[in-house]
Amino acid sequence: MMRLHNHPELTQPARLADWVAARLDEGLNVFDHADIYGAGQCEKLFGDALRAHPTLTKRVRVITKAGIVPAVQDSTPWQVKHYRAEADYLGNAIDKALGSLSVERIDTFLIHRPDPLLQAAEVARVLEDAVSAGKVRQIGVSNFLPEQWRWLARNTRLPLVCNQSQLSLTHTTPLFDGTLEAHLTDGIRWLAWSPLGGGNLAERIPADLLSRAREETGLDETALAIAWLRQIPGTPVPVIGSMNPDRIRCALHGARSQLPRPLWYRLLESARNMAVA
Amino acid sequence: MMRLHNHPELTQPARLADWVAARLDEGLNVFDHADIYGAGQCEKLFGDALRAHPTLTKRVRVITKAGIVPAVQDSTPWQVKHYRAEADYLGNAIDKALGSLSVERIDTFLIHRPDPLLQAAEVARVLEDAVSAGKVRQIGVSNFLPEQWRWLARNTRLPLVCNQSQLSLTHTTPLFDGTLEAHLTDGIRWLAWSPLGGGNLAERIPADLLSRAREETGLDETALAIAWLRQIPGTPVPVIGSMNPDRIRCALHGARSQLPRPLWYRLLESARNMAVA
Amino acid sequence: MMRLHNHPELTQPARLADWVAARLDEGLNVFDHADIYGAGQCEKLFGDALRAHPTLTKRVRVITKAGIVPAVQDSTPWQVKHYRAEADYLGNAIDKALGSLSVERIDTFLIHRPDPLLQAAEVARVLEDAVSAGKVRQIGVSNFLPEQWRWLARNTRLPLVCNQSQLSLTHTTPLFDGTLEAHLTDGIRWLAWSPLGGGNLAERIPADLLSRAREETGLDETALAIAWLRQIPGTPVPVIGSMNPDRIRCALHGARSQLPRPLWYRLLESARNMAVA
Repeated sequence: MMRLHNHPELTQPARLADWVAARLDEGLNVFDHADIYGAGQCEKLFGDALRAHPTLTKRVRVITKAGIVPAVQDSTPWQVKHYRAEADYLGNAIDKALGSLSVERIDTFLIHRPDPLLQAAEVARVLEDAVSAGKVRQIGVSNFLPEQWRWLARNTRLPLVCNQSQLSLTHTTPLFDGTLEAHLTDGIRWLAWSPLGGGNLAERIPADLLSRAREETGLDETALAIAWLRQIPGTPVPVIGSMNPDRIRCALHGARSQLPRPLWYRLLESARNMAVA
Repeated sequence: MMRLHNHPELTQPARLADWVAARLDEGLNVFDHADIYGAGQCEKLFGDALRAHPTLTKRVRVITKAGIVPAVQDSTPWQVKHYRAEADYLGNAIDKALGSLSVERIDTFLIHRPDPLLQAAEVARVLEDAVSAGKVRQIGVSNFLPEQWRWLARNTRLPLVCNQSQLSLTHTTPLFDGTLEAHLTDGIRWLAWSPLGGGNLAERIPADLLSRAREETGLDETALAIAWLRQIPGTPVPVIGSMNPDRIRCALHGARSQLPRPLWYRLLESARNMAVA
Repeated sequence: MMRLHNHPELTQPARLADWVAARLDEGLNVFDHADIYGAGQCEKLFGDALRAHPTLTKRVRVITKAGIVPAVQDSTPWQVKHYRAEADYLGNAIDKALGSLSVERIDTFLIHRPDPLLQAAEVARVLEDAVSAGKVRQIGVSNFLPEQWRWLARNTRLPLVCNQSQLSLTHTTPLFDGTLEAHLTDGIRWLAWSPLGGGNLAERIPADLLSRAREETGLDETALAIAWLRQIPGTPVPVIGSMNPDRIRCALHGARSQLPRPLWYRLLESARNMAVA
């Protein structure tokens, strides 16, 4: 929901509640947030919608993240964008998110970025406390490399259930450097951000290939990108940035489709502009 | 045997059988194949030779690989080079290789490339079945990175005995980025492809150094490259691409030679065009 | 003590002994050596000082390293800089260092560089023997990557207590590629060489930021660099190259100071010339 604040038509709680209800009816029940999206507005707007239609609350599952402080929110003289995966700070961020989102429990709480200053034992304690207190159901990370999540995992009895990081037809390096397999080995679900390639797909893949693929599969560009992603072992979960119902339906259609293996590779090689070795 | 089909003098089964017998007499008994070498011709020519001289069959050990589909063999409209480390496909590839090669058992079967779509549990089952059925003695991989083979290894009770990947005086990065040590830690034997540097050795190492090294050691360029390789911990096994008996004898001579450590480094640093740090 | 031989004022044993005593009084008791520093002169000068003031011997802890052979010390015709982490060679290097340094025991002995020819089992035996014989208290490595130290660690019952490698405001890559976390996971203390950035800090960080930081914290450039380093999880130990007592006192002051987290990031981002993601 990182772009929620850019949709004036959804700022009225009742309208957003309708939007959420429509997604739930379509089978989408996980909503991805972070404290910094819209400078905090995204969580609050979502919470307002749940307060407007409280029956939605039990039907939604919410992911949220904390640990990045934008420069404008740094009240010190340094005014610097920085990471803050500090135990106390994260504990407070969880409480604040529960209030903003108006949920009883965050389904999955993620550390937003790997902070070189992260004190793993202390952070693990505060996350375990949040789980014990029922504030958070499960924990994960975002944009972590394998060695980074392994160090955190070593410090907690809780499983790290997911890593939200970039993966799409326009960002395929992790499929070739062992990152994919590290997720699988550790049982960490990949939540793929920018799964549609940030709108750059059409720049990377020639129009005639996209149209041939559409003829063959019936899938448009959005559905192709999502079908392509879902075929990867471990079944990465796309984190859809768009709020557009049509686009979301296309993505959902893609998620339920299967590409022939040669087409999967054809799209990959076209996007990378090179054949496999 | 990836260049076997380029040797018209060896296409007659009896001639190739003589060639194989000569290698066996010299102490070389492992022959490296893949389904795609010569578009399948290499395995078949080798099998024809064994059928011509069946007594050779018990003396040879055969490596073969599958999992790459060249564009010309892709019968879909996409005609794309792609990887296909799929359980059923690999199971069939093993059966097909047994027929082509005319052996009762493949000594070592390798997955040719790390396929991002590889479903490790299913692939592991099909490889285990092939071993249980006596079709394959042992399994390994090719061109895998550590995280990639570790994920596959996690899924099977069978050891992955080797990784066939590039290593030579002209490809030394794996000696400095931890890849070598990952092989050693996991007990994975390195089968080095392109061990002579694809014929580029003389471009990378000045002629006067090669001639000084020859004076000092009595080894020619081929023997030097192989001696250099064999000195690496774990004793990498060179996969000789050449079919030339003289060159193979030089390589064999190199494999039984020892370079003084300073010369080992002198060759390395000359090929890298930089001293060690 | 890699620059000790460049300080003529300290070549007299009594003068150097005074220098050492002053450091001990300030709370610094670990002195970092290597067989190659000053072509062997650094260890010898230090040993002369201890012989001049034997009471210092019990108060100092000495790190030393071996395994690099400079080209000028290669007596073969190849005259090449090379690594030599060979069991016998390292065993002899330990004996030689004990003599040069005039200590009964080396506190921590390090393999200076990851040698691709390192035979881990043999090297582990010789290091274990040195520890059993009381010649060395503990062992570690230098400039090793995680896979490299893990392979050595697998071969010995002794813990590898540290890895001496580069880390500073001007060399921050290891904070972002998982290297930091690999040290933490394996319990390997980071000894940071070139902790002041080799004097390049002022080129990388604008003067006005350094002066604002000084106003805010009271720390000069040296103290800032060390405070910054010590704040990293695992508390890396700076290996100070300077022999200048004033500079060392500044470093010591920095090591006991704490930077506000935003300033830590402000320095990082300025040195990298980019904000965090």
